[in-house]
Amino acid sequence: MAERPVERAGDATLTHLNDAGEARMVDVSDKPATAREATARGFVRLSAECVALLRSGGVPKGDALAVARIAGIMAAKKTPELIPLCHPLPLTGTDVTAEVTDDGAEIVARVRTLGPTGVEMEALTAVSVACCALIDMIKAVDRLARIERVEVAAKSGGRSGDWKRED
Amino acid sequence: MAERPVERAGDATLTHLNDAGEARMVDVSDKPATAREATARGFVRLSAECVALLRSGGVPKGDALAVARIAGIMAAKKTPELIPLCHPLPLTGTDVTAEVTDDGAEIVARVRTLGPTGVEMEALTAVSVACCALIDMIKAVDRLARIERVEVAAKSGGRSGDWKRED
Amino acid sequence: MAERPVERAGDATLTHLNDAGEARMVDVSDKPATAREATARGFVRLSAECVALLRSGGVPKGDALAVARIAGIMAAKKTPELIPLCHPLPLTGTDVTAEVTDDGAEIVARVRTLGPTGVEMEALTAVSVACCALIDMIKAVDRLARIERVEVAAKSGGRSGDWKRED
Amino acid sequence: MAERPVERAGDATLTHLNDAGEARMVDVSDKPATAREATARGFVRLSAECVALLRSGGVPKGDALAVARIAGIMAAKKTPELIPLCHPLPLTGTDVTAEVTDDGAEIVARVRTLGPTGVEMEALTAVSVACCALIDMIKAVDRLARIERVEVAAKSGGRSGDWKRED
Amino acid sequence: MAERPVERAGDATLTHLNDAGEARMVDVSDKPATAREATARGFVRLSAECVALLRSGGVPKGDALAVARIAGIMAAKKTPELIPLCHPLPLTGTDVTAEVTDDGAEIVARVRTLGPTGVEMEALTAVSVACCALIDMIKAVDRLARIERVEVAAKSGGRSGDWKRED
Amino acid sequence: MAERPVERAGDATLTHLNDAGEARMVDVSDKPATAREATARGFVRLSAECVALLRSGGVPKGDALAVARIAGIMAAKKTPELIPLCHPLPLTGTDVTAEVTDDGAEIVARVRTLGPTGVEMEALTAVSVACCALIDMIKAVDRLARIERVEVAAKSGGRSGDWKRED
Repeated sequence: MAERPVERAGDATLTHLNDAGEARMVDVSDKPATAREATARGFVRLSAECVALLRSGGVPKGDALAVARIAGIMAAKKTPELIPLCHPLPLTGTDVTAEVTDDGAEIVARVRTLGPTGVEMEALTAVSVACCALIDMIKAVDRLARIERVEVAAKSGGRSGDWKRED
Repeated sequence: MAERPVERAGDATLTHLNDAGEARMVDVSDKPATAREATARGFVRLSAECVALLRSGGVPKGDALAVARIAGIMAAKKTPELIPLCHPLPLTGTDVTAEVTDDGAEIVARVRTLGPTGVEMEALTAVSVACCALIDMIKAVDRLARIERVEVAAKSGGRSGDWKRED
Repeated sequence: MAERPVERAGDATLTHLNDAGEARMVDVSDKPATAREATARGFVRLSAECVALLRSGGVPKGDALAVARIAGIMAAKKTPELIPLCHPLPLTGTDVTAEVTDDGAEIVARVRTLGPTGVEMEALTAVSVACCALIDMIKAVDRLARIERVEVAAKSGGRSGDWKRED
Repeated sequence: MAERPVERAGDATLTHLNDAGEARMVDVSDKPATAREATARGFVRLSAECVALLRSGGVPKGDALAVARIAGIMAAKKTPELIPLCHPLPLTGTDVTAEVTDDGAEIVARVRTLGPTGVEMEALTAVSVACCALIDMIKAVDRLARIERVEVAAKSGGRSGDWKRED
Repeated sequence: MAERPVERAGDATLTHLNDAGEARMVDVSDKPATAREATARGFVRLSAECVALLRSGGVPKGDALAVARIAGIMAAKKTPELIPLCHPLPLTGTDVTAEVTDDGAEIVARVRTLGPTGVEMEALTAVSVACCALIDMIKAVDRLARIERVEVAAKSGGRSGDWKRED
Repeated sequence: MAERPVERAGDATLTHLNDAGEARMVDVSDKPATAREATARGFVRLSAECVALLRSGGVPKGDALAVARIAGIMAAKKTPELIPLCHPLPLTGTDVTAEVTDDGAEIVARVRTLGPTGVEMEALTAVSVACCALIDMIKAVDRLARIERVEVAAKSGGRSGDWKRED
């Protein structure tokens, strides 16, 4: 758990590798615990029929999206079990929203912690699993459902400061 | 757990909802256990610098991709914990491959079972988590990494027979 | 894993103990896999204010009860992790309902399997965790919420045949 | 994760819902970490035969109750996995006791943390799972065993101060 | 998931690797489900003081060993989560015993399944975790406690037939 | 959760037992969070053929050892789920190395935390599971593989200060 990061290809560093180039959980013992937040978002493309079904109101819509959102929140907490080198962090808040658009569903996860490292992976995992769970709910009516984008949208806190995706 | 599926919008059925439109784990007690396979695939867009780093050989590449593949295999087994209404199934085989292309990495998961229902969700979850794990490995060198596609590619076995995505 | 059950106090047997009186997971290798179902139910007493809030319609009610139901379904799948001596079983169906009454909420779980042993514990665990999850959702408005009953209501299948609680 | 709680029915607030009335993990980022403790208790009604068996000494009694207690301690740690909106907290102590009475077993769980929110749910979940595990141990001799009460008994620490159930 | 095993170094085959030499969960879809059993054993060397303490009777001894045994049983069920390429199998019986000897504790796990592949890894994992759990229980009195042996002792069932360690 | 440890056999104390001699998770609420590190090591004896196979270069070696190392890192995070009375701790770093020797493989785990109690059990569990995972990878070519030693090698931090095994 040497502090010195492995340098390669100029400035590029793969901090998750130790001196021997082997995977490890990066040592963050010396980093102070600060308030951090990350937002990730994803989009699931759905058929017109499926969108109509989700929009036709009543409990079904609520339940399909509620299941996806809850799956996302629970997945944020499961991130250290799923992503082999992620640190276990005390999450202090997680919100996952799911909005039906004309051609699919947009899912956004915001995750907060007070810890020595960021929560981008928690937000990304929450969105990915919420997208999968939504597909599970509607796959009987739309077997072509597809996740078309999952990405970190913004993060704040920590040494690297605030960042917002702009591509 | 009434057998009668909830009918809505013509033929469309959301089988994961009970008569009251509430989420449930669909009853598959009366479906025979048959050999089933599903394949899912995903793509993570990466910067040229990151692709070069992954291609520059040696252990690091092996480890970054190995971590992603192993995360995917383990996620296939965790699917019933992550996707709220998925059935626990005895997986009989899981293979996850990760191939570096000129602009990213293509991840493919093949999952097999001998069970009463299919393993599309297991394959889809394996790919999603493998993509997230790969991003975790390289996020220090490519903060814009993005999952651009996760989809079921093919399935075989079960009552609905073989199916291959053709869009 | 001797087949001979430990006999004590006449006919009474604690099958979960081995010959030395130690806890073990009972050997069911020789029991045939048959269709089995179990139903459990529970009641959470709630304040009039809380009942009114849950009944006042809109999404909140849906979400509070949906969270409890989903927690119950997921807990059924987690039973072998929670109940030390329970067998891992391939659940083929799980439905959890939650109904608001004048003085609380009645939660019912029905679980099915095709296996060598029954699913009473899965149904009981699903109800218990759903009750806890409901309390979590409303504890800010009703700190006196209390689980007043959790019990197996009926079971069918297996050697012992159908049984219905009648006390 | 807006700070403003959703107001409904006068002062009553369901803090686990966001502005859209959807379930979320409440944001506690701004709450200081303080020492907190919660106690919950539950009662499992058992037949006279079953009570006699548990009281007849020797290893079996020890093991049946030990299994229930250990299941409870482990369940306290699993609370964030079971209760969808619970925060993961660093538990600093957990004790579960099980006492056989004339008509059943009384189970008490005390849980401590140094965190930004309380551990009532951890104590409640520990008791619920311990009760279920006890039933699993004795269900072969008492199929009518029933959980008759699970409730938070007291809590201390945090902004709301000490509280003791008095109903 | 090609059936053809990777051949290397004469007859030696590492079946957990695919044609590209990458880790995978071996495909056992075509293997029949048969009754299988595996036994593993381990030894934890303990100080004389610690042995005396475990032998001095009363509840403590029961609890320390009971905790180790229960941890082992639960670990058998967790094997597919811990060993990346293990298949999830429906365990039909698990027994873990712990015996105090003059210089330590001997732990034995017997695991049974009705499945397409064996349960050596489940037995091995159960023993390893039981040994760790025992050390956790007594580490305050014996910081030099050491696991000195963990091995598969015997297996039966499956194509390869019965086997007993004889070294 | 009384602070007073149970005294027995002179100075020897089994702190994991409460006043009634029952297992509990020790109360560490009053201990300050300090930087702590623990190292554990283990040895898996392997046949000459197996050692040659692991040494013969190429991807297979990388993957077999990589799987073992990753399993170890993930097991460190799972310790509170596996060891019944372990505290959940925020690990700040974990590194597992695996080195092939002439007669087997030496596995070393270093774990760090900033917490109120040590991480010996996390290091010990990481090594044990990594050893099991390695055996799973090579068991097709070496059915006599055996774990011959797993022990805590050193620890630092906390009230008891630095310690290094010297037997």
